[in-house]
Amino acid sequence: MRLFLLTLILSLALTNAGRATQTDSLKYINATNFELIGKGFADTENLYDRLPASLKGVTRPPVWSLSKNCSGLAIRFRTNSKAIAAKWEVTGDVVMNHFAPSGIKGLDLYALKDGKWQFVNSARPSGKATTATIISNMTGTDMEYMLYLPLYDGLANLEIGVQATAEISKPKVDSPRKEKPVVFYGTSITQGGCASRAGMSYPNILSRMLDRQIINLGFSGNGQLDLEVAEALANIDASCFVIDCLPNVNIAQMNEKYARFLEIIRKKNPDVPILMVETILFPHMYFDQSVYSLLHEKNALLKKIYTEQKKKNDKHIYYQKADKLIGTDFEATVDGIHLTDLGFLRMAENLHPVLHKLIK
Amino acid sequence: MRLFLLTLILSLALTNAGRATQTDSLKYINATNFELIGKGFADTENLYDRLPASLKGVTRPPVWSLSKNCSGLAIRFRTNSKAIAAKWEVTGDVVMNHFAPSGIKGLDLYALKDGKWQFVNSARPSGKATTATIISNMTGTDMEYMLYLPLYDGLANLEIGVQATAEISKPKVDSPRKEKPVVFYGTSITQGGCASRAGMSYPNILSRMLDRQIINLGFSGNGQLDLEVAEALANIDASCFVIDCLPNVNIAQMNEKYARFLEIIRKKNPDVPILMVETILFPHMYFDQSVYSLLHEKNALLKKIYTEQKKKNDKHIYYQKADKLIGTDFEATVDGIHLTDLGFLRMAENLHPVLHKLIK
Repeated sequence: MRLFLLTLILSLALTNAGRATQTDSLKYINATNFELIGKGFADTENLYDRLPASLKGVTRPPVWSLSKNCSGLAIRFRTNSKAIAAKWEVTGDVVMNHFAPSGIKGLDLYALKDGKWQFVNSARPSGKATTATIISNMTGTDMEYMLYLPLYDGLANLEIGVQATAEISKPKVDSPRKEKPVVFYGTSITQGGCASRAGMSYPNILSRMLDRQIINLGFSGNGQLDLEVAEALANIDASCFVIDCLPNVNIAQMNEKYARFLEIIRKKNPDVPILMVETILFPHMYFDQSVYSLLHEKNALLKKIYTEQKKKNDKHIYYQKADKLIGTDFEATVDGIHLTDLGFLRMAENLHPVLHKLIK
Repeated sequence: MRLFLLTLILSLALTNAGRATQTDSLKYINATNFELIGKGFADTENLYDRLPASLKGVTRPPVWSLSKNCSGLAIRFRTNSKAIAAKWEVTGDVVMNHFAPSGIKGLDLYALKDGKWQFVNSARPSGKATTATIISNMTGTDMEYMLYLPLYDGLANLEIGVQATAEISKPKVDSPRKEKPVVFYGTSITQGGCASRAGMSYPNILSRMLDRQIINLGFSGNGQLDLEVAEALANIDASCFVIDCLPNVNIAQMNEKYARFLEIIRKKNPDVPILMVETILFPHMYFDQSVYSLLHEKNALLKKIYTEQKKKNDKHIYYQKADKLIGTDFEATVDGIHLTDLGFLRMAENLHPVLHKLIK
């Protein structure tokens, strides 16, 4: 009883400010009526999947499962509603002890204001199925919106709620621009662990900074250079490929597969920039000597693989040092490894000028 | 089954990197053997409480309940162990949908390195009772440590684990310094909602920046200028009082109680600086017009109360504008209101020079 009371108090306490309920007369429209962005493949098993159906039973089971998390996907729409709400159902109702549910399985709304994407508010999950008001008391001006989908869960269904009298339609503005996207291949960190809300994963931040769609192929714990994934991503007509999978591979895997992974991408994309990213320097490595050694060993090997790739006369291969990527105060992670919004923003700010040049 | 598998995969995926298990031969020692810092009152009902026992049945039930959350408390110790672990039991096992369990009820370890507190790693909770290795593979050098306690849960018991052969003792270095602490009175945000781990609440960051103990009297949703709380905090021999409760009070409460709250502190502390902090500008207010109006109305009234206090010839009253306190990119919160590590670091960086002057 005491626990219940405390939980109740906390729930109330944390939500008591400024959440008006202008939602009495909302209509809900299935998100399939609008535009889905950030998707790398058209031929997926379910709408909100990240890998082509052809990889089912081909790629390893965890990669396949994780491809059903929606990281990087977003719904673009336009409305003049004074309030915006959402009804959504996730497939896993995933829970983790270092990741806020809002980031795992919530939604995150941005609006285009003076040509820039600005945070509006997040939709916090209450379990497998949620109905939540995201924002209310707006002026009712026609605006462009982007609703980021869950980073670490699948989506069975999504409806967007607006006032019954409001108009809602597909977007009129092409932003983030649809022209050749940036493709990220990587780990849990690439997938967005552990952002507080979907808009704060580093690929999603970069998408706003670059005004360019991103394709997120981060697979938590499973960015292990699977060659069939390379075959798939090589089919994307990309402006740049970013390979940021080092935390998930060991030295043997790097030796065995990294060069081959590059070769597969190169075969179909001879002139597209590929950025090889070092593993970030996990802050706890400054205390854990074995992690320190391992990370430096991996980064040294990556540099060697990069040098060899250059020697193959690859003129579009680029290298990103981990140095300062997440800052220098050791505060950017929740657990020594996974980035918080603080770490993700720093990573995006540091990668932004690099990618800005590469995608020109 | 699919859900179970997915959850299993994710759990593994997120924890597979660099968590060695040098913990075979650990001894666990009750934290009561070391030094508990950040505590404002000696006469509490339970060791890890934040308000004096005399307020039981006197202050409102939610304030009393929340005073049993450990925000701001930390254990100081010294050891030469190569590995550090913790066994702890929380009282509530609180869950929230926009707050990572690691921040709600985890522990967070820092070490004093070259005279500065540096993040070592966090201890992630696995329910009501947890045993977790925090760090291993260290050199075994004698070092000073600080272990932050849960922000949003109570602590029934805590034991610190070190190698059986290692020494562990009370600290030898006085840092953060014990001399007159800074006292924070406030809301959920002051209490640390929604930091990813305990060390990242803004009062805890400021404690490291200022090298000074802080007393956290943030009560989620309940920083409502309760006068009996003012009576209690007026008894603390503080270097500065920071009043940051505006998000939790309405205009009527401000008119009725703010000046009286100040008066109670002043009576016993005629010369101690008091910093009145405006409500931060919640990013969603740039879309929700009613929130926009309300926040500006509250800040305008606060300014008026401050001016009146100055007129009473109070020479030690100070005013902190919200302007830029959490940055200007609207990205500092998880839900438009509660700060992430990003928002907390910005808030601490902005308050640091102000408090540095005031506590001299």
